[in-house]
Amino acid sequence: MLSDAGAANNSAIEFWFDFSSPYSYLAAEKIDALAASYQRIVHWRPVLLGAIFQVTNAAPLVNLPLKGNYSVRDFSRSARYLNLPFTMPSKFPLPTQLAARTYYWLCERDVDMAHDFARAIFRALFVHDRDISDLAVVCDVAASMGLDADTVSLAVAQPEVKARLKNETDAAMLKGVFGAPFFMVNDEPFWGVDRLPQLEKWLATGGF
Amino acid sequence: MLSDAGAANNSAIEFWFDFSSPYSYLAAEKIDALAASYQRIVHWRPVLLGAIFQVTNAAPLVNLPLKGNYSVRDFSRSARYLNLPFTMPSKFPLPTQLAARTYYWLCERDVDMAHDFARAIFRALFVHDRDISDLAVVCDVAASMGLDADTVSLAVAQPEVKARLKNETDAAMLKGVFGAPFFMVNDEPFWGVDRLPQLEKWLATGGF
Repeated sequence: MLSDAGAANNSAIEFWFDFSSPYSYLAAEKIDALAASYQRIVHWRPVLLGAIFQVTNAAPLVNLPLKGNYSVRDFSRSARYLNLPFTMPSKFPLPTQLAARTYYWLCERDVDMAHDFARAIFRALFVHDRDISDLAVVCDVAASMGLDADTVSLAVAQPEVKARLKNETDAAMLKGVFGAPFFMVNDEPFWGVDRLPQLEKWLATGGF
Repeated sequence: MLSDAGAANNSAIEFWFDFSSPYSYLAAEKIDALAASYQRIVHWRPVLLGAIFQVTNAAPLVNLPLKGNYSVRDFSRSARYLNLPFTMPSKFPLPTQLAARTYYWLCERDVDMAHDFARAIFRALFVHDRDISDLAVVCDVAASMGLDADTVSLAVAQPEVKARLKNETDAAMLKGVFGAPFFMVNDEPFWGVDRLPQLEKWLATGGF
């Protein structure tokens, strides 16, 4: 269906997420294959949901009355529905700036490796229950991909790397991002892993 | 797949909703046919989301920063995705106790007619943009089904009818209902019209 509007349709899919968002982990396992089916690339953009929630006056799902208990159940069920492994982390939610900074630092060097790192961080947290707020764990995940742990330790402390994450989070809010995962295709916003079917229909039909 | 666990599987589907919830309207158009495919009946239970939000400290979607604008867009897109007509009401959100009380009053007399009335109220609001908080509109919808408008006017003022709605809302919260639409199948909770695919898989497989 890449007909008349083919050129506009081939723009990238923006994918905003926070490494501590279970639904973002599920989306991260699915989005690249979905995009590839429609000849799209994906721009992965980790953000800090905590900073966004301060502006929008929101709170982490699991802290909300009634909704919190439901959400934990829904995380696992949604993972089973999508045939993905999932373990509720023992430390949750947790700070994700070290993982996100490492992602952006890597992204400037090798985008594909940065995506692999992002998937490895998500799996460390949501499959292997590792504490990804710990610099040693982030470095260990990076080292498993052949990166030098000391270089990563220095990178996450660099002012320009810190600024990049802050700027990406601010830019996301300006685009209307209020939660995660959040996608944008040709200015059409989709929030939640449960909107992937609508996103796919959008790609297949050029909008509906 | 109604095999060994057939007896337990044939219990009803509970369906909680608020007449002013767009996603509830979409779910209301789909749930009976879905349930019938798996030999289930549906217990429709209107509640007052406003009363639930007071307890859970939540707010109507459209009033939330960033999320509000997205939601209005998502209401329409979700309707198109599900092939249902949808008009964003000019008065929204609005009080729904008169419609909900009429539903419970009717339900004691004729369950099928009560379901028809619920669907007619949803369509009055979300297709024809009528003000269903107005008693005259509620009576008009009831009259179009052959009910006597004066009888309905008296019914919604009856203390036992008012108490029924309050009790149903309290009972829903005790079951963990925090939003709408909300479904329960054999104690498994599903929140949102976007969980109907998971609910269907649950019915088809007896749990997954």
